[in-house]
Amino acid sequence: MNKPVVGVDLGGTNIKLGLISPDGEVLERNSTETRAERGPEAVAGRICDAVLGLLARAGLDRRAVAGVGIGSPGTIDLQAGVVTFSPNLPGWHDVPLRRLVEEGTELGCVLDNDANAAALAESWVGAGRGKSSLILLTLGTGIGGGIVLDGRIWHGGNGVAGEIGHMSIDPDGPECGCGNRGCLEAFASATGMVRRMKEAIEKGEKTSLADQAETLTARRIHEAAEAGDQAARRTVQMTGRYLGIGVSNLMHILNPEVIAFSGGMTGAGRMLMDPLLEEADWRTMEAPRRDVKICFAELPEDAGIIGAARCLMLA
Amino acid sequence: MNKPVVGVDLGGTNIKLGLISPDGEVLERNSTETRAERGPEAVAGRICDAVLGLLARAGLDRRAVAGVGIGSPGTIDLQAGVVTFSPNLPGWHDVPLRRLVEEGTELGCVLDNDANAAALAESWVGAGRGKSSLILLTLGTGIGGGIVLDGRIWHGGNGVAGEIGHMSIDPDGPECGCGNRGCLEAFASATGMVRRMKEAIEKGEKTSLADQAETLTARRIHEAAEAGDQAARRTVQMTGRYLGIGVSNLMHILNPEVIAFSGGMTGAGRMLMDPLLEEADWRTMEAPRRDVKICFAELPEDAGIIGAARCLMLA
Repeated sequence: MNKPVVGVDLGGTNIKLGLISPDGEVLERNSTETRAERGPEAVAGRICDAVLGLLARAGLDRRAVAGVGIGSPGTIDLQAGVVTFSPNLPGWHDVPLRRLVEEGTELGCVLDNDANAAALAESWVGAGRGKSSLILLTLGTGIGGGIVLDGRIWHGGNGVAGEIGHMSIDPDGPECGCGNRGCLEAFASATGMVRRMKEAIEKGEKTSLADQAETLTARRIHEAAEAGDQAARRTVQMTGRYLGIGVSNLMHILNPEVIAFSGGMTGAGRMLMDPLLEEADWRTMEAPRRDVKICFAELPEDAGIIGAARCLMLA
Repeated sequence: MNKPVVGVDLGGTNIKLGLISPDGEVLERNSTETRAERGPEAVAGRICDAVLGLLARAGLDRRAVAGVGIGSPGTIDLQAGVVTFSPNLPGWHDVPLRRLVEEGTELGCVLDNDANAAALAESWVGAGRGKSSLILLTLGTGIGGGIVLDGRIWHGGNGVAGEIGHMSIDPDGPECGCGNRGCLEAFASATGMVRRMKEAIEKGEKTSLADQAETLTARRIHEAAEAGDQAARRTVQMTGRYLGIGVSNLMHILNPEVIAFSGGMTGAGRMLMDPLLEEADWRTMEAPRRDVKICFAELPEDAGIIGAARCLMLA
């Protein structure tokens, strides 16, 4: 394939698009608001307009591109090209997004989950460049993930592999939104970190955040930690340690070449990564630990559009 | 490939061999003692003699078979065909087993880990027949594993994927032989089950095993449970629950089509499987749980030889 591909990153607030070269370069960009409240058909129409606008801006005819790859939040029926359900897109149930975009653009289209697309981009031209296996963990309100093996997304039997945030690391740990207990997400997502900081405040630990229990965010905790707040610092570090347990489990099970982290919480940098590595190191046997690169993702802005385009290239 | 393949299952005590048809049938068998104490070259010689003996018994010329697949315990350098280290084969370090068998039989040969080979057999003609992904957990002194994705063994970056027993399910759980804490193996292997039964005895729980703390085995615990010993029964059931946590984690991460269990402990049957399923069910989200078959392995005797042969067929 030597034609560029349009990659679409559908988010709850914005739609980002890029014209992606066959070697993963972003040749042209476009973005527009999602306006999810107007419903799936309207959103599909906005995607089509933005795709055609991108081609116009690049001075390209429809025949000059190989097609459109779309990364969407939520669960995807890959064969059917349907978004079956998406918490971030209210009212979306069984939306035939692939068909809607194919009809609206007269271009071939593939659809995949946005976290999978991001993992594929990191594997292809980001943190996993030159390697064949990578696991991406996206740290945000929840913990999402994508698994790339032999350069391709591993989807699993029902297309829902990569729910890394819902591995349980403590049988009697805190309840998770999913119904399970002790999920990695319940400990180490932004939500989990805020919960643990609140617990520290309730226990009476000395902290500059004592009167902010109700308005805490992961970013505030990190800022307080940077400013010397020891309780906040311990909370960030424990988040790293919990992530280290998850990383150790992934190395033992899958022995990937790269494990990368993306999402807002990675802003905590070494304060998060150092305890993560320390915990992963002592917990993991020599052979599955050796040679594994554990790092932050390299394409925070463009992983979605590049990965979506790559999905089409591999289809 | 329409020629049969010789599959070799190298164990610490015995070497088992089978002539395996292209569709996975065992056409002929042979076995011999390993005599590992005589050293790697002698063992390789015994393998070669047994392979040639098997062909003679089947009335086949060397050219009538496609080659030899060998499953060996320990860590394997797949590219080099070398057993780098094997706790079950004393003194084995960097043994070029593939070359030794190729030279001794004048047949092409592949080498893989025995748990991987067993998983591949189960996937091909056992519990995973007709499916493309399967995870096998072998329950014994430790918990080993093999992961088959798209009908092939997933080896990982260093060839050591499938160390499922060393996923940690409790940050502060019991120490494991590997140095980690709270490994699935530390809770749910035969060793882990014996340890928990001993703890129950030490706590003064009423049990018919009270005076057998030093000679306990997994089998005795199961027999006592069958005979109505409630403390033993709880110990077996808790083993199932811990395995259920591991299974839930595997479903969330990899969403495989089949998860199968082999090894001596599976003799506990429904007493182990019922709590395992109950635990896995409540812990796992609907989509990754749906359609996953969780079961005992179907080829307890022949998985090793069939899987080793399959390794050669796929090479």
